[in-house]
Amino acid sequence: MNDESYIQLTLEIAKRGSGFVSPNPMVGCVITKNNKIIGAGYHQKYGENHAEINAINSAVESLEGSTLYVNLEPCSHYGHTPPCVDKIIESKIKRVVIGTLDVNPLVSGNGVKKLKKAGIEVKVGVLEKECTELNKFFFKYITKKIPYVTLKIAQTLDGKIADESNYSQWITSAESRKLVHSLRAEYDAVLIGKRTAELDNPLLTVRLTEGRNPWRVVLDSDLKLNTDLKLFTQNTDGKTILVTSKESISKKNKIKKLSGLGVRIIFVKRNGNGNLNLKSILKELGILEITSVLVEGGSEIFSSFLKQNLFDDVLLFISPKLLGTGISAFSSVRINDLRKAFRFKIKNSEIVGDDILLELTK
Amino acid sequence: MNDESYIQLTLEIAKRGSGFVSPNPMVGCVITKNNKIIGAGYHQKYGENHAEINAINSAVESLEGSTLYVNLEPCSHYGHTPPCVDKIIESKIKRVVIGTLDVNPLVSGNGVKKLKKAGIEVKVGVLEKECTELNKFFFKYITKKIPYVTLKIAQTLDGKIADESNYSQWITSAESRKLVHSLRAEYDAVLIGKRTAELDNPLLTVRLTEGRNPWRVVLDSDLKLNTDLKLFTQNTDGKTILVTSKESISKKNKIKKLSGLGVRIIFVKRNGNGNLNLKSILKELGILEITSVLVEGGSEIFSSFLKQNLFDDVLLFISPKLLGTGISAFSSVRINDLRKAFRFKIKNSEIVGDDILLELTK
Repeated sequence: MNDESYIQLTLEIAKRGSGFVSPNPMVGCVITKNNKIIGAGYHQKYGENHAEINAINSAVESLEGSTLYVNLEPCSHYGHTPPCVDKIIESKIKRVVIGTLDVNPLVSGNGVKKLKKAGIEVKVGVLEKECTELNKFFFKYITKKIPYVTLKIAQTLDGKIADESNYSQWITSAESRKLVHSLRAEYDAVLIGKRTAELDNPLLTVRLTEGRNPWRVVLDSDLKLNTDLKLFTQNTDGKTILVTSKESISKKNKIKKLSGLGVRIIFVKRNGNGNLNLKSILKELGILEITSVLVEGGSEIFSSFLKQNLFDDVLLFISPKLLGTGISAFSSVRINDLRKAFRFKIKNSEIVGDDILLELTK
Repeated sequence: MNDESYIQLTLEIAKRGSGFVSPNPMVGCVITKNNKIIGAGYHQKYGENHAEINAINSAVESLEGSTLYVNLEPCSHYGHTPPCVDKIIESKIKRVVIGTLDVNPLVSGNGVKKLKKAGIEVKVGVLEKECTELNKFFFKYITKKIPYVTLKIAQTLDGKIADESNYSQWITSAESRKLVHSLRAEYDAVLIGKRTAELDNPLLTVRLTEGRNPWRVVLDSDLKLNTDLKLFTQNTDGKTILVTSKESISKKNKIKKLSGLGVRIIFVKRNGNGNLNLKSILKELGILEITSVLVEGGSEIFSSFLKQNLFDDVLLFISPKLLGTGISAFSSVRINDLRKAFRFKIKNSEIVGDDILLELTK
């Protein structure tokens, strides 16, 4: 096996931390000696050991003269745990192969410098693209302090997310719905608008697959949502957030009731058009260390994120159905000139059950 | 190499006849002896030698004891050429491996019977699905006497084939447009409606790639199209067909002018709603030995083929653009209940340039 294969392996094991390490990155580490794996580990849970430490602790023989592979630059500063580079130097590891540098400008390159200074041979930039992709949430959050935003849309071939009667269960196949639940287990939060909360009365939890539940965020500018919604009454883990306007502070009774149900309420300012300011919402979620948000609808919410350019990518599930009428995914986007059409790029495509999933970027 | 590999090879070489053998099927033939290819050939042009004959004639050593591979059952009847099975028997070929039987109920299995009777070992049904797919035009035409119909649609993510001003050049990327020209070279005919002829004034020929031009069919129920259209004036190969209603027979001058330009005119009856009867059109095209039609628009034409269930599949090019308004691919399809949505199946998907191409079946 070569350096790329081992870094590929670190990526595979790093993924096991998905959903549990945020706001930290997912990191996997493999240690080899004489082209044989003698240790491996990954960052399992926020606040606990980093991947490198777990790998070093797992080693079945002396680390002297070994090679350590890790998808992200080892840390050189004190956080919840002592710096990994110190432990690496101490262990007499001979060579360190790193997928990608830490993107945090305050620490980027520092780990590498310290390792080199200690006489360790360091190679940086193996499967760099894949390593960056794996931690896209972390990389955006650490630099912008707001979460990575993915619009998750389930639509027909003609772009409808519901029929004329707002009926949308189900546009896509069971396999696609299951995949959405897996996504919920990966993203720190899911977000919906008031209308979707009312129409679908969803739980927004992970049920069709295994995984931890995400934060659930619902936007309700005038604090008008019924407190009987499943979102408020059936989720008792304290991870439901209602975002409303600053003016709603006066609605004491409703606030009291929601707080009593364990719902966290965030007040943000409105835009000129009366809608909640999305940028402010993302900043507030960032303060809660939410590094990624899966936006699940509806049409007005998708349109706002698109128009204000506050999304990072789109996961578009297209079911091979045709309605010809109904609710469009981006109902308030109306561009009358083809030359000015909004343009995405297709990054990936995949058949999921009866549907096709397009991964779109800007 | 095994039987499957050799049949795969017959498929590859059979394709070289694409566009030139219709209404015959595409057939390729490979002859092996001691697991070495000693002859190969394909049906190159309608009216000329069948694949088996070309392969036999190409053999570089004695055919005695050899194995003949062919994607379609060899013919046992006199057509433009004598029966291939007679030639195979005569050549002392020992074994014949056939992809799929001829679908024509009048001859299906007859070739195999005759070969077996002569003591030849026969194996039928190798890569049957692929062999059937290759000759889907022929198989439909020979059984139904009407052409195979593919709707070719280029749309945005939200199902628009043009913007509000009917501007559609170009929805999709250059690679997709090039692929459409390749399709034109494969299909016997392309078909458009009156409005598309007026709006786009297309030539409907093969220009972005190499290949022979298809028949061009334009529907114009009231015979109102301007005779100055490129379709009529710039295509001088006599392969332009205008389909109009029987009532238009009275428009002597227009008919004379179009005939003078080499345009063939077909008169068909109307439906109750005044539109030309699509089934009658397909029958008329069948009479001209047109086995396949690529329907290129516009929206009303797509809708009619869909509603009357007169299409076989859809090639849907989706460009990752968003308009939010404009002309829908199936503008007159309006289904108000998701549970009654029209359902396709995704048979294949492929990235083409910036776009994704979905192959949809019923």
